Amino acid sequence: MSGTVAGTFEAAREGVETGESRRLISADKVEGTAVFNREGERLGTVEDVMLDKISGRVAFAVMSFGGFLGIGEQYHPLPWSTLNYDVQLGGYVVDMTREQLSGAPSYAAGSDVDLNDDTYGKRVYDYYKAPYWNAGI
Amino acid sequence: MSGTVAGTFEAAREGVETGESRRLISADKVEGTAVFNREGERLGTVEDVMLDKISGRVAFAVMSFGGFLGIGEQYHPLPWSTLNYDVQLGGYVVDMTREQLSGAPSYAAGSDVDLNDDTYGKRVYDYYKAPYWNAGI
Repeated sequence: MSGTVAGTFEAAREGVETGESRRLISADKVEGTAVFNREGERLGTVEDVMLDKISGRVAFAVMSFGGFLGIGEQYHPLPWSTLNYDVQLGGYVVDMTREQLSGAPSYAAGSDVDLNDDTYGKRVYDYYKAPYWNAGI
Repeated sequence: MSGTVAGTFEAAREGVETGESRRLISADKVEGTAVFNREGERLGTVEDVMLDKISGRVAFAVMSFGGFLGIGEQYHPLPWSTLNYDVQLGGYVVDMTREQLSGAPSYAAGSDVDLNDDTYGKRVYDYYKAPYWNAGI
């Protein structure tokens, strides 16, 4: 949305820039943030954050990579817990090599992958060895 | 972000438009959605979604109202659970009268209200009779 948010948002954003001293972050701030692997290679950008309507939990952060203006773009759904902010890089670091990430579940723009499907969702979480966001399933 | 997201996002968005049949929603889709009271009066717009970095939970949806291009705007932090999507209105309904909402915690753009402050946060949640998002506190 607009950049004219309340002081508290700015404070939360500064917190990220100065070392994650604040607990809360705006979804706006997350989206558009670069994602690197642990070798510092840029892998993509957080494109969107998918929320569970009922519980208000982040089900997936979706990283986009490749393509141009959305054409040919690929999406990597990521468990929230895989994203660790690195102040020096100014982006998130996913603790995987490029090879590990290339084998992770991903899909092309326009594919019929459904993040609402728990079978797919669990496969994503299993790949990253993270406990499934919807643990009740 | 761009409108050129994966098919699955579109499906999730359609789900909202056709009656919340899908469980997940994009934070992008939440932001910018109108908020009404139960009399159908428009109260404002969801401006942002504040996430807890650690748990990946939505701590607050922040509704903006009034002002122009961010000047004079007021912000209402809302517990996620207060927002119920209404297909006919095409927006969220908060089950409160305008009077009840006018007495709710809010702040002006540029104020020093800090949503990271649990004392303030709990006051917000108490007002809406919702269990505090960070129940461990």
